[in-house]
Amino acid sequence: MDVEQNLDVVEPVKYDDGRLYILDQTALPKDENYIEIRDAEDIYDAICKLKVRGAPAIGVAAAYGLLVSIKKEITENSKNNNNLQKLLQKALELGEHIAGARPTAVNLRWATSRMTAALEKAIKENPDIENGGSAGEYCLKILEEEAVKIHEEDLAACRSMGAYGLELLKSRKNILTHCNAGTLATSKYGTCLAPIYIGREQGIEFKVFADETRPLLQGARLTAWELSRAGVDVTLICDNMAASLMSKGKVDAVVVGCDRMAANGDGANKIGTMGLAILAKEYKIPFYMFVPTSTIDLATETGEDIVIEERNPDEIWKLWYEHPMSTPDIKCFNPAFDVTAAKYITAVITEKGIVYPPYKENLTKIFEKGGSNNE
Amino acid sequence: MDVEQNLDVVEPVKYDDGRLYILDQTALPKDENYIEIRDAEDIYDAICKLKVRGAPAIGVAAAYGLLVSIKKEITENSKNNNNLQKLLQKALELGEHIAGARPTAVNLRWATSRMTAALEKAIKENPDIENGGSAGEYCLKILEEEAVKIHEEDLAACRSMGAYGLELLKSRKNILTHCNAGTLATSKYGTCLAPIYIGREQGIEFKVFADETRPLLQGARLTAWELSRAGVDVTLICDNMAASLMSKGKVDAVVVGCDRMAANGDGANKIGTMGLAILAKEYKIPFYMFVPTSTIDLATETGEDIVIEERNPDEIWKLWYEHPMSTPDIKCFNPAFDVTAAKYITAVITEKGIVYPPYKENLTKIFEKGGSNNE
Repeated sequence: MDVEQNLDVVEPVKYDDGRLYILDQTALPKDENYIEIRDAEDIYDAICKLKVRGAPAIGVAAAYGLLVSIKKEITENSKNNNNLQKLLQKALELGEHIAGARPTAVNLRWATSRMTAALEKAIKENPDIENGGSAGEYCLKILEEEAVKIHEEDLAACRSMGAYGLELLKSRKNILTHCNAGTLATSKYGTCLAPIYIGREQGIEFKVFADETRPLLQGARLTAWELSRAGVDVTLICDNMAASLMSKGKVDAVVVGCDRMAANGDGANKIGTMGLAILAKEYKIPFYMFVPTSTIDLATETGEDIVIEERNPDEIWKLWYEHPMSTPDIKCFNPAFDVTAAKYITAVITEKGIVYPPYKENLTKIFEKGGSNNE
Repeated sequence: MDVEQNLDVVEPVKYDDGRLYILDQTALPKDENYIEIRDAEDIYDAICKLKVRGAPAIGVAAAYGLLVSIKKEITENSKNNNNLQKLLQKALELGEHIAGARPTAVNLRWATSRMTAALEKAIKENPDIENGGSAGEYCLKILEEEAVKIHEEDLAACRSMGAYGLELLKSRKNILTHCNAGTLATSKYGTCLAPIYIGREQGIEFKVFADETRPLLQGARLTAWELSRAGVDVTLICDNMAASLMSKGKVDAVVVGCDRMAANGDGANKIGTMGLAILAKEYKIPFYMFVPTSTIDLATETGEDIVIEERNPDEIWKLWYEHPMSTPDIKCFNPAFDVTAAKYITAVITEKGIVYPPYKENLTKIFEKGGSNNE
C-alpha cells in the first residue's frame, strides 16, 4: 500500500482517520471536490447520483459507507451500542438500503453482503465477546478490517493487472484508450490505465490518446482529466479521429476495460470499443482488453448472449448542450455498449495473468490459478 | 427544374421574383429562418458567418448575391445606370469583395468571376447595345441569366449524381452517412444524399442512419434535420455506434461526400470517413463516395499529397457545451478531414457517371466524357 510515493494519482474513495471522503465525479472536470460521507443517506445519494462510479469503486465506497453508517448509529443511538445482535441487524438493514442505490451494480450488493457476513462470522466465532460497553467498538473493528480488506484487494487486483499489462506495453509507448477504465472507476490505478500509472512510478513514460467517448464523454471528463492530473502526457480526440491516428502510425497499442466477457472471449464494453478493435486489426496494432476475473462470466457462452442496454436518446442530442443539436421528432439509436468479437482481441489481461487465444480454453484455465482475486 | 413536385426538400438558396433568400444554417435545427440578401454586405456576411455553407451552395449564393448587389447599385445610384462599362467596373469591385468572404472556398471566386465574365462578354459581343436608360436593365438581364444558369447546372449535377447513385442503392435500403453532403451543402438535393431524395420522388423509401459527426455535429444539426424535414426515415447515432449497426446487418451501404479526390482515387472527406470505410470493408458493405468532377484533382497524385487542416481544439471540449468538458491545459488533436484510401472505396459517383477501380485509369477517362458538369 506504500507504492504510490512518486505518483499523484487521484483517489475516488479516501478513508482517512476514520472518515470517508468521495471525489464528486459529477463536478469533474470543473471542480475537484471531495465530499464527506457520514451516513447511509450520504452514500446512497453518492452512488445513486454517480458521484462515485465504476463497479470496483462503487464496491469499495459501499463497504466504507456501511462502516461509517454503523459508526453514526452507534454514536447517536446508545441502546444499540451494547448488543451485537442488534448491531448486526442494523448493519443488514443499512446494507440493504445502500445496495438499492443502483440495483444492477453487482459489486455494490457483493460489498455490503461481504461486510455483514464478516460481522456475522465474527460474532459466531467469538461467542465469548460480551455485549456491553465494548460491543460497538468490536463491531466497528470487524467492519473496518473488512472494508480495508476489500479496498486493498481491489488495489492489489489493479496493480496486478497493471504489472501484467506493463509487460505488454513496455515497448509500446503510444497508447489509445476509450471511455474510463482508469483510477476513477476503481479504488485506484484502474484496470486498463494501471500499466500507465505503474509504468510512471517506474519512470516509464507513455503518450496516451483518450477518445472523448460519446455520448457521455467519460474520456474527456474523466480519463483525460485523471491522466493529466497524474502528469501523464495525454491528448484528447473525438472518437472518429482514432482511424486517422492509427493510419499515421501514431498508435502502438489500444487498451480498454470490459463490462462483461463471455466464455469464448467476446467482450462487452462501452459503445465504440468494437470499432476500435476492427481498426486496430486493420493496422496490425495490438488490442488489449483488461478484464478482472470477476468480470468474466463463464456461464455466458458467447457475446450474442449479452443483452445490450439502450439508453435515453436525449443523451445524444440534448444532454450537455447549451442548445439542443437536434429535435425531439428525430429518432436516435443509443446503445450503451457493444461486443468486441474475441477474434479482434490480442490478449485479455486479468489480475491472475495474461490470457491469449484460444480464449474458450484459456479463460477457463485462468480461474484454476490461485493468487489474488478482486471477487 | 419541375421535378420536386412531391418532395419537400429544403432549399438553402432561393431566388424568387427578383429577390434572394438564404436559409440561415447557423440557426438550425432550432429555427428555420430565411433571411433576405439585399446587397454585397448581406451576402458577404452570410458566407463569412456560415449562414450558407458547402462549396456548391456558396457558389450559387454568391452568383445571386452579386446580382442583387448590382441591382441595388443601379436603383440607388442613377449615374452608373446608363453606362455599361461603369456597371462592369462596379460588378468587378463587388465580386472581388464578395469573394473575400471565405478566401479558400474555390467555388466562391469561381462563381463571381463567371458572373463578371458573362457581363464582359455580353458587352463585347453586342457593341450595338447603347448606353443610356436601358443599360442597367440589360446588365441585370445578363447577370440574372448567368446566376440562374449556375444554379441550374448545380441542380443538374446533383440530380445526375443522384440518378447514378440510385442505380447502386435501389436494392440497398438501409444507408449510413457521415457529415452533411446533402441539400444544405448544394443548391438542392446534395451529392451523396441526392439518390435518397430522387428515390423518394420515385416512391423508393430509404432508411438512413446519420452519424452526428463530431466535433462540429453537421450530421445532427444538418443531415438529420434536412432528411427528417423531407419526410425521409432518419435515425441519428453517435459516430462510434456505426460499427455496432454494421455488425448487426443494419447497414446495406455507406454514402459520403468528398472534399478533394486525388488522381489515384484516395478521397479526403470529413474526419471519421476513413474509419467508416474500413468498417464497411470488414462487414463487406459497399462504400460509395460522391464526387463531382470539380472535386477530382488529377494534379494531386495520391492522398498523401493532401494537406489536412487542423482546427481549434476548443471545438472538441468547449464549443456547444453549457460547461466545458475538459480543461485548457489538456491537449487536443483536431484534424478536420481524413483521407480514405482508394482500396476501401467501392465506387466513385460523379455527375458524368459511376467510376470503378482501377481509379488511376478510370478517373482520367471520366473527364473525357461530355455531358453536364458543375464546374
